[in-house]
Amino acid sequence: MAITPDHIHDIIPEPALRRLPWYLAYVSMLKDQNVEYVSSTQISRELSVDASQIAKDLSFLNIKGKTRIGYNVITLEKELQDFLGFHRSHNALIVGVGSLGGALIQDSGLANYGLNIVAGFDTNPDIIGRTLCGIPVFDIHELALRRKQFSAEIGIITVPVEHAQSVADQLIEAGVKALWNYTPYRIKVTDDIVVQNTSIYAHLAVMYNRLSITKSRTVNS
Amino acid sequence: MAITPDHIHDIIPEPALRRLPWYLAYVSMLKDQNVEYVSSTQISRELSVDASQIAKDLSFLNIKGKTRIGYNVITLEKELQDFLGFHRSHNALIVGVGSLGGALIQDSGLANYGLNIVAGFDTNPDIIGRTLCGIPVFDIHELALRRKQFSAEIGIITVPVEHAQSVADQLIEAGVKALWNYTPYRIKVTDDIVVQNTSIYAHLAVMYNRLSITKSRTVNS
Repeated sequence: MAITPDHIHDIIPEPALRRLPWYLAYVSMLKDQNVEYVSSTQISRELSVDASQIAKDLSFLNIKGKTRIGYNVITLEKELQDFLGFHRSHNALIVGVGSLGGALIQDSGLANYGLNIVAGFDTNPDIIGRTLCGIPVFDIHELALRRKQFSAEIGIITVPVEHAQSVADQLIEAGVKALWNYTPYRIKVTDDIVVQNTSIYAHLAVMYNRLSITKSRTVNS
Repeated sequence: MAITPDHIHDIIPEPALRRLPWYLAYVSMLKDQNVEYVSSTQISRELSVDASQIAKDLSFLNIKGKTRIGYNVITLEKELQDFLGFHRSHNALIVGVGSLGGALIQDSGLANYGLNIVAGFDTNPDIIGRTLCGIPVFDIHELALRRKQFSAEIGIITVPVEHAQSVADQLIEAGVKALWNYTPYRIKVTDDIVVQNTSIYAHLAVMYNRLSITKSRTVNS
Protein backbone atom coordinates (compact mmCIF):
# COMPACT_ATOMS: atom_id res chain seq x y z
CA MET A 1 0.00 0.00 0.00
CA ALA A 2 1.33 3.42 -0.95
CA ILE A 3 2.05 5.78 1.90
CA THR A 4 0.24 9.04 1.29
CA PRO A 5 1.99 12.32 2.16
CA ASP A 6 -0.75 12.81 4.75
CA HIS A 7 0.45 9.71 6.50
CA ILE A 8 4.04 10.91 6.73
CA HIS A 9 3.08 14.19 8.32
CA ASP A 10 0.53 12.80 10.74
CA ILE A 11 2.47 12.71 13.97
CA ILE A 12 1.07 10.16 16.38
CA PRO A 13 0.54 11.66 19.86
CA GLU A 14 2.80 10.32 22.59
CA PRO A 15 0.01 8.77 24.72
CA ALA A 16 -1.16 6.77 21.68
CA LEU A 17 2.40 5.72 20.95
CA ARG A 18 2.79 4.51 24.51
CA ARG A 19 -0.32 2.35 24.21
CA LEU A 20 0.80 0.58 21.04
CA PRO A 21 3.23 -1.75 22.89
CA TRP A 22 0.29 -2.91 25.05
CA TYR A 23 -1.64 -3.85 21.92
CA LEU A 24 1.45 -5.55 20.52
CA ALA A 25 1.94 -7.61 23.69
CA TYR A 26 -1.70 -8.71 23.64
CA VAL A 27 -1.79 -9.46 19.92
CA SER A 28 1.42 -11.52 20.14
CA MET A 29 -0.22 -13.58 22.87
CA LEU A 30 -3.27 -14.14 20.65
CA LYS A 31 -1.00 -15.21 17.79
CA ASP A 32 0.65 -17.78 20.04
CA GLN A 33 -2.85 -19.06 20.83
CA ASN A 34 -3.55 -19.33 17.06
CA VAL A 35 -6.32 -16.74 17.20
CA GLU A 36 -6.99 -15.34 13.71
CA TYR A 37 -8.94 -12.12 14.24
CA VAL A 38 -9.33 -9.61 17.03
CA SER A 39 -11.76 -6.69 17.30
CA SER A 40 -11.09 -3.37 19.02
CA THR A 41 -13.95 -4.26 21.40
CA GLN A 42 -12.07 -7.39 22.40
CA ILE A 43 -8.78 -5.50 22.87
CA SER A 44 -10.75 -2.90 24.83
CA ARG A 45 -12.18 -5.48 27.24
CA GLU A 46 -8.77 -7.06 27.76
CA LEU A 47 -6.72 -3.88 28.24
CA SER A 48 -9.36 -1.55 29.73
CA VAL A 49 -8.83 1.05 27.02
CA ASP A 50 -11.82 2.63 25.26
CA ALA A 51 -12.62 0.78 21.99
CA SER A 52 -12.92 4.03 20.05
CA GLN A 53 -9.54 5.09 21.42
CA ILE A 54 -8.03 1.82 20.19
CA ALA A 55 -9.49 2.27 16.71
CA LYS A 56 -8.10 5.82 16.66
CA ASP A 57 -4.65 4.69 17.82
CA LEU A 58 -4.54 1.94 15.20
CA SER A 59 -5.60 4.38 12.47
CA PHE A 60 -1.98 5.61 12.45
CA LEU A 61 -0.92 2.18 11.18
CA ASN A 62 -1.28 0.79 7.65
CA ILE A 63 -4.02 -1.58 8.66
CA LYS A 64 -7.78 -1.71 8.26
CA GLY A 65 -10.04 -3.81 10.43
CA LYS A 66 -12.96 -5.68 8.81
CA THR A 67 -16.45 -4.89 10.02
CA ARG A 68 -17.71 -7.47 12.53
CA ILE A 69 -14.48 -9.54 12.22
CA GLY A 70 -11.82 -7.09 13.34
CA TYR A 71 -8.11 -7.09 12.61
CA ASN A 72 -6.11 -10.01 11.29
CA VAL A 73 -3.87 -10.95 14.22
CA ILE A 74 -0.74 -11.76 12.19
CA THR A 75 -0.98 -8.59 10.10
CA LEU A 76 -1.69 -6.44 13.14
CA GLU A 77 1.32 -7.84 15.00
CA LYS A 78 3.57 -7.18 12.01
CA GLU A 79 2.27 -3.64 11.46
CA LEU A 80 2.69 -2.81 15.16
CA GLN A 81 6.25 -4.15 15.19
CA ASP A 82 7.13 -2.25 12.01
CA PHE A 83 5.57 0.96 13.28
CA LEU A 84 7.23 0.70 16.69
CA GLY A 85 10.63 -0.02 15.18
CA PHE A 86 11.29 -2.91 17.57
CA HIS A 87 12.57 -5.07 14.68
CA ARG A 88 15.15 -2.56 13.48
CA SER A 89 18.44 -2.28 15.31
CA HIS A 90 19.27 1.08 16.94
CA ASN A 91 22.81 1.57 18.21
CA ALA A 92 23.12 3.23 21.59
CA LEU A 93 25.90 4.47 23.87
CA ILE A 94 25.49 4.38 27.63
CA VAL A 95 27.19 6.92 29.85
CA GLY A 96 27.62 5.88 33.48
CA VAL A 97 28.48 2.20 33.88
CA GLY A 98 27.60 2.08 37.56
CA SER A 99 24.88 0.01 39.11
CA LEU A 100 21.98 1.02 36.86
CA GLY A 101 24.11 1.39 33.71
CA GLY A 102 25.61 -2.04 34.28
CA ALA A 103 22.13 -3.47 34.84
CA LEU A 104 20.85 -2.04 31.54
CA ILE A 105 23.85 -3.45 29.66
CA GLN A 106 22.99 -6.85 31.12
CA ASP A 107 19.31 -6.64 30.22
CA SER A 108 19.25 -8.54 26.95
CA GLY A 109 15.54 -7.78 26.77
CA LEU A 110 16.39 -4.36 25.34
CA ALA A 111 17.93 -6.05 22.29
CA ASN A 112 14.60 -7.78 21.64
CA TYR A 113 13.11 -4.31 21.33
CA GLY A 114 15.74 -3.12 18.85
CA LEU A 115 18.09 -1.39 21.29
CA ASN A 116 21.69 -2.36 20.68
CA ILE A 117 23.99 -0.97 23.39
CA VAL A 118 27.37 -0.90 21.66
CA ALA A 119 29.59 0.90 24.17
CA GLY A 120 29.72 2.19 27.72
CA PHE A 121 31.50 5.30 29.02
CA ASP A 122 32.67 6.23 32.47
CA THR A 123 35.19 8.39 34.32
CA ASN A 124 36.17 5.66 36.77
CA PRO A 125 39.62 4.24 35.83
CA ASP A 126 38.70 0.93 37.49
CA ILE A 127 35.97 0.35 34.91
CA ILE A 128 37.50 1.96 31.81
CA GLY A 129 39.11 -0.58 29.50
CA ARG A 130 37.01 -3.47 30.78
CA THR A 131 34.08 -5.17 29.05
CA LEU A 132 30.68 -5.98 30.49
CA CYS A 133 28.67 -8.72 28.75
CA GLY A 134 30.93 -8.12 25.78
CA ILE A 135 30.34 -4.36 25.75
CA PRO A 136 33.56 -2.29 25.96
CA VAL A 137 33.77 0.55 28.48
CA PHE A 138 35.66 3.64 27.30
CA ASP A 139 36.85 6.86 28.86
CA ILE A 140 34.19 9.54 28.49
CA HIS A 141 36.70 11.59 26.49
CA GLU A 142 36.37 9.09 23.65
CA LEU A 143 32.65 9.82 23.25
CA ALA A 144 32.84 11.66 19.90
CA LEU A 145 35.31 9.20 18.39
CA ARG A 146 33.35 6.11 19.41
CA ARG A 147 29.98 7.65 18.55
CA LYS A 148 31.18 7.97 14.97
CA GLN A 149 32.81 4.53 14.94
CA PHE A 150 29.59 2.82 16.06
CA SER A 151 27.18 5.17 14.21
CA ALA A 152 25.19 5.44 17.42
CA GLU A 153 22.21 7.79 17.44
CA ILE A 154 20.98 7.17 20.98
CA GLY A 155 22.67 8.11 24.25
CA ILE A 156 21.55 6.58 27.54
CA ILE A 157 22.25 8.65 30.65
CA THR A 158 22.76 6.68 33.86
CA VAL A 159 25.13 9.03 35.72
CA PRO A 160 24.58 10.68 39.11
CA VAL A 161 21.99 13.44 38.79
CA GLU A 162 24.48 16.32 39.14
CA HIS A 163 26.25 15.24 35.94
CA ALA A 164 23.10 14.68 33.87
CA GLN A 165 23.13 18.00 31.99
CA SER A 166 26.84 17.99 31.30
CA VAL A 167 26.71 14.41 29.97
CA ALA A 168 23.68 15.30 27.83
CA ASP A 169 25.64 18.21 26.35
CA GLN A 170 28.63 15.97 25.64
CA LEU A 171 26.47 13.32 23.98
CA ILE A 172 24.81 15.90 21.72
CA GLU A 173 28.19 17.45 20.93
CA ALA A 174 29.36 13.96 19.95
CA GLY A 175 26.49 13.66 17.48
CA VAL A 176 23.81 11.70 19.29
CA LYS A 177 20.23 12.56 18.22
CA ALA A 178 18.20 11.04 21.05
CA LEU A 179 18.72 10.89 24.80
CA TRP A 180 17.26 8.32 27.15
CA ASN A 181 17.55 9.98 30.53
CA TYR A 182 17.34 7.74 33.59
CA THR A 183 18.16 10.52 36.08
CA PRO A 184 15.45 12.58 37.77
CA TYR A 185 17.12 15.72 36.36
CA ARG A 186 15.20 17.64 33.67
CA ILE A 187 17.90 18.03 31.04
CA LYS A 188 17.63 20.95 28.61
CA VAL A 189 18.12 20.37 24.89
CA THR A 190 17.25 22.06 21.61
CA ASP A 191 14.14 21.05 19.66
CA ASP A 192 15.98 18.77 17.24
CA ILE A 193 17.01 16.39 20.03
CA VAL A 194 14.63 13.67 21.18
CA VAL A 195 14.48 13.12 24.95
CA GLN A 196 12.75 10.32 26.84
CA ASN A 197 12.80 10.41 30.62
CA THR A 198 12.52 7.12 32.44
CA SER A 199 12.45 7.91 36.07
CA ILE A 200 11.95 4.56 37.71
CA TYR A 201 12.32 6.23 41.09
CA ALA A 202 9.32 8.45 40.39
CA HIS A 203 7.29 5.26 39.99
CA LEU A 204 8.53 4.16 43.40
CA ALA A 205 7.35 7.46 44.89
CA VAL A 206 3.86 6.92 43.47
CA MET A 207 3.80 3.35 44.74
CA TYR A 208 4.89 4.24 48.29
CA ASN A 209 2.40 7.08 48.50
CA ARG A 210 -0.55 5.03 47.25
CA LEU A 211 0.43 2.16 49.56
CA SER A 212 0.36 4.45 52.59
CA ILE A 213 -3.07 5.77 51.56
CA THR A 214 -4.40 2.23 51.16
CA LYS A 215 -3.09 1.41 54.61
CA SER A 216 -4.59 4.47 56.31
CA ARG A 217 -7.88 3.66 54.55
CA THR A 218 -7.77 0.13 55.94
CA VAL A 219 -7.00 1.43 59.43
CA ASN A 220 -9.81 3.98 59.24
CA SER A 221 -12.44 1.64 57.87
CA MET B 1 3.34 20.78 63.16
CA ALA B 2 0.12 18.83 63.72
CA ILE B 3 -1.24 17.06 60.70
CA THR B 4 -4.81 18.17 60.14
CA PRO B 5 -7.39 15.60 59.04
CA ASP B 6 -7.64 17.63 55.81
CA HIS B 7 -4.06 16.82 55.14
CA ILE B 8 -4.55 13.10 55.53
CA HIS B 9 -7.42 12.97 53.10
CA ASP B 10 -5.91 15.28 50.48
CA ILE B 11 -4.63 12.81 47.95
CA ILE B 12 -1.84 14.26 45.86
CA PRO B 13 -2.49 13.73 42.14
CA GLU B 14 -0.16 11.31 40.38
CA PRO B 15 1.37 13.89 37.99
CA ALA B 16 2.31 16.06 40.99
CA LEU B 17 3.76 13.07 42.77
CA ARG B 18 5.86 12.25 39.73
CA ARG B 19 7.29 15.77 39.68
CA LEU B 20 8.40 15.74 43.33
CA PRO B 21 11.51 13.58 42.65
CA TRP B 22 12.63 16.22 40.11
CA TYR B 23 12.42 18.90 42.78
CA LEU B 24 14.23 16.63 45.21
CA ALA B 25 17.07 15.99 42.77
CA TYR B 26 17.46 19.72 42.12
CA VAL B 27 17.22 20.73 45.79
CA SER B 28 19.80 18.09 46.77
CA MET B 29 22.17 19.57 44.20
CA LEU B 30 21.62 23.05 45.67
CA LYS B 31 22.31 21.72 49.15
CA ASP B 32 25.61 20.26 47.95
CA GLN B 33 26.44 23.73 46.61
CA ASN B 34 25.63 25.21 50.05
CA VAL B 35 22.70 27.22 48.70
CA GLU B 36 20.38 28.24 51.55
CA TYR B 37 17.09 29.26 49.92
CA VAL B 38 15.33 28.50 46.67
CA SER B 39 12.19 30.10 45.23
CA SER B 40 9.58 28.38 43.08
CA THR B 41 10.52 30.83 40.30
CA GLN B 42 14.07 29.53 40.44
CA ILE B 43 12.96 25.89 40.43
CA SER B 44 10.63 26.79 37.58
CA ARG B 45 13.45 28.23 35.46
CA GLU B 46 15.67 25.26 36.13
CA LEU B 47 13.13 22.49 35.54
CA SER B 48 10.82 24.17 33.02
CA VAL B 49 7.76 23.60 35.18
CA ASP B 50 5.28 26.43 35.79
CA ALA B 51 6.09 28.30 39.05
CA SER B 52 2.46 28.22 40.17
CA GLN B 53 2.39 24.47 39.48
CA ILE B 54 5.45 24.03 41.69
CA ALA B 55 3.92 26.02 44.53
CA LYS B 56 0.76 23.91 44.20
CA ASP B 57 2.73 20.64 44.20
CA LEU B 58 4.72 21.69 47.26
CA SER B 59 1.53 22.69 49.10
CA PHE B 60 0.99 18.97 49.76
CA LEU B 61 4.11 18.99 51.93
CA ASN B 62 4.51 20.34 55.47
CA ILE B 63 6.53 23.30 54.28
CA LYS B 64 5.87 26.98 53.78
CA GLY B 65 8.03 29.20 51.61
CA LYS B 66 8.90 32.72 52.77
CA THR B 67 7.83 35.63 50.58
CA ARG B 68 10.69 36.89 48.43
CA ILE B 69 13.15 34.36 49.95
CA GLY B 70 11.57 31.07 49.05
CA TYR B 71 12.05 27.67 50.64
CA ASN B 72 14.84 26.70 52.99
CA VAL B 73 16.85 24.17 50.97
CA ILE B 74 17.67 21.78 53.82
CA THR B 75 14.08 21.72 55.11
CA LEU B 76 12.68 21.30 51.61
CA GLU B 77 15.00 18.37 50.89
CA LYS B 78 14.03 16.68 54.14
CA GLU B 79 10.29 17.22 53.62
CA LEU B 80 10.50 15.89 50.06
CA GLN B 81 12.40 12.81 51.19
CA ASP B 82 9.93 12.18 54.02
CA PHE B 83 6.95 12.69 51.79
CA LEU B 84 8.33 10.47 49.02
CA GLY B 85 9.23 7.70 51.45
CA PHE B 86 12.70 7.25 49.96
CA HIS B 87 14.24 7.10 53.44
CA ARG B 88 12.00 4.33 54.69
CA SER B 89 12.75 0.74 53.73
CA HIS B 90 10.11 -1.14 51.72
CA ASN B 91 10.57 -4.88 51.30
CA ALA B 92 9.89 -6.24 47.85
CA LEU B 93 9.76 -9.62 46.11
CA ILE B 94 10.69 -9.97 42.48
CA VAL B 95 9.14 -12.63 40.27
CA GLY B 96 11.11 -13.54 37.16
CA VAL B 97 14.86 -13.60 37.74
CA GLY B 98 15.75 -13.45 34.06
CA SER B 99 17.65 -10.71 32.35
CA LEU B 100 15.61 -7.71 33.54
CA GLY B 101 14.84 -9.19 36.98
CA GLY B 102 18.50 -9.96 37.51
CA ALA B 103 19.41 -6.44 36.41
CA LEU B 104 17.00 -4.89 38.92
CA ILE B 105 18.40 -7.05 41.73
CA GLN B 106 21.84 -5.75 40.83
CA ASP B 107 20.78 -2.10 40.72
CA SER B 108 21.78 -0.96 44.19
CA GLY B 109 20.36 2.47 43.27
CA LEU B 110 16.91 1.13 44.15
CA ALA B 111 18.02 0.67 47.77
CA ASN B 112 18.92 4.38 47.90
CA TYR B 113 15.27 5.06 47.11
CA GLY B 114 13.98 2.80 49.85
CA LEU B 115 13.35 -0.33 47.80
CA ASN B 116 14.72 -3.42 49.46
CA ILE B 117 14.48 -6.47 47.20
CA VAL B 118 14.56 -9.37 49.66
CA ALA B 119 13.86 -12.39 47.48
CA GLY B 120 13.54 -13.51 43.89
CA PHE B 121 11.23 -16.19 42.47
CA ASP B 122 11.40 -18.21 39.31
CA THR B 123 10.24 -21.47 37.74
CA ASN B 124 13.62 -22.29 36.21
CA PRO B 125 15.32 -25.08 38.25
CA ASP B 126 18.74 -23.77 37.14
CA ILE B 127 18.18 -20.51 39.02
CA ILE B 128 16.13 -21.72 42.00
CA GLY B 129 18.27 -22.20 45.11
CA ARG B 130 20.98 -19.79 43.95
CA THR B 131 21.64 -16.27 45.19
CA LEU B 132 22.20 -13.13 43.15
CA CYS B 133 24.01 -10.26 44.87
CA GLY B 134 23.10 -11.94 48.14
CA ILE B 135 19.41 -12.23 47.23
CA PRO B 136 18.04 -15.81 47.40
CA VAL B 137 16.02 -17.17 44.51
CA PHE B 138 13.11 -19.43 45.47
CA ASP B 139 10.63 -21.61 43.64
CA ILE B 140 7.52 -19.60 42.79
CA HIS B 141 5.50 -22.05 44.88
CA GLU B 142 7.12 -20.60 48.00
CA LEU B 143 5.68 -17.15 47.31
CA ALA B 144 3.14 -17.05 50.16
CA LEU B 145 5.53 -18.56 52.70
CA ARG B 146 8.40 -16.18 51.87
CA ARG B 147 6.13 -13.15 51.53
CA LYS B 148 5.13 -13.65 55.13
CA GLN B 149 8.68 -14.42 56.30
CA PHE B 150 10.04 -11.17 54.77
CA SER B 151 6.91 -9.04 55.46
CA ALA B 152 7.11 -7.86 51.86
CA GLU B 153 4.37 -5.57 50.62
CA ILE B 154 5.61 -4.96 47.08
CA GLY B 155 5.82 -7.44 44.22
CA ILE B 156 7.89 -6.71 41.13
CA ILE B 157 6.83 -8.48 37.95
CA THR B 158 9.58 -9.17 35.43
CA VAL B 159 8.24 -12.31 33.78
CA PRO B 160 7.40 -12.87 30.10
CA VAL B 161 4.26 -10.94 29.21
CA GLU B 162 2.03 -14.04 28.89
CA HIS B 163 2.58 -14.83 32.59
CA ALA B 164 2.04 -11.29 33.89
CA GLN B 165 -1.59 -11.70 35.00
CA SER B 166 -1.09 -15.09 36.60
CA VAL B 167 1.96 -13.89 38.54
CA ALA B 168 0.06 -10.77 39.62
CA ASP B 169 -2.75 -12.99 40.93
CA GLN B 170 -0.28 -15.20 42.80
CA LEU B 171 1.46 -12.19 44.37
CA ILE B 172 -1.85 -10.75 45.57
CA GLU B 173 -2.93 -14.16 46.85
CA ALA B 174 0.36 -14.29 48.78
CA GLY B 175 -0.49 -10.97 50.47
CA VAL B 176 1.38 -8.33 48.46
CA LYS B 177 -0.33 -4.91 48.42
CA ALA B 178 1.46 -3.20 45.53
CA LEU B 179 2.63 -4.42 42.15
CA TRP B 180 5.40 -2.93 40.08
CA ASN B 181 4.72 -4.27 36.60
CA TYR B 182 7.57 -4.19 34.11
CA THR B 183 5.69 -6.08 31.41
CA PRO B 184 3.68 -4.32 28.71
CA TYR B 185 0.63 -6.33 29.84
CA ARG B 186 -2.21 -4.41 31.51
CA ILE B 187 -2.76 -6.52 34.58
CA LYS B 188 -6.20 -6.45 36.24
CA VAL B 189 -6.49 -6.04 40.01
CA THR B 190 -9.07 -4.95 42.55
CA ASP B 191 -9.13 -1.33 43.83
CA ASP B 192 -7.23 -2.08 47.02
CA ILE B 193 -4.09 -3.10 45.14
CA VAL B 194 -1.63 -0.43 43.99
CA VAL B 195 -0.19 -0.92 40.50
CA GLN B 196 2.62 0.98 38.84
CA ASN B 197 3.49 0.15 35.26
CA THR B 198 7.03 0.79 34.13
CA SER B 199 7.16 -0.07 30.51
CA ILE B 200 10.67 0.87 29.52
CA TYR B 201 9.99 -0.54 26.07
CA ALA B 202 7.18 1.95 25.52
CA HIS B 203 9.76 4.69 26.05
CA LEU B 204 11.86 3.08 23.35
CA ALA B 205 8.91 3.15 20.98
CA VAL B 206 8.46 6.88 21.54
CA MET B 207 12.18 7.49 21.06
CA TYR B 208 12.39 5.54 17.80
CA ASN B 209 9.30 7.22 16.40
CA ARG B 210 10.44 10.74 17.26
CA LEU B 211 13.90 10.00 15.89
CA SER B 212 12.46 8.93 12.56
CA ILE B 213 10.34 12.09 12.40
CA THR B 214 13.39 14.25 13.15
CA LYS B 215 15.23 12.48 10.36
CA SER B 216 12.46 12.88 7.79
CA ARG B 217 12.22 16.54 8.78
CA THR B 218 15.94 16.97 8.17
CA VAL B 219 15.67 15.22 4.81
CA ASN B 220 12.70 17.33 3.79
CA SER B 221 14.11 20.68 4.84
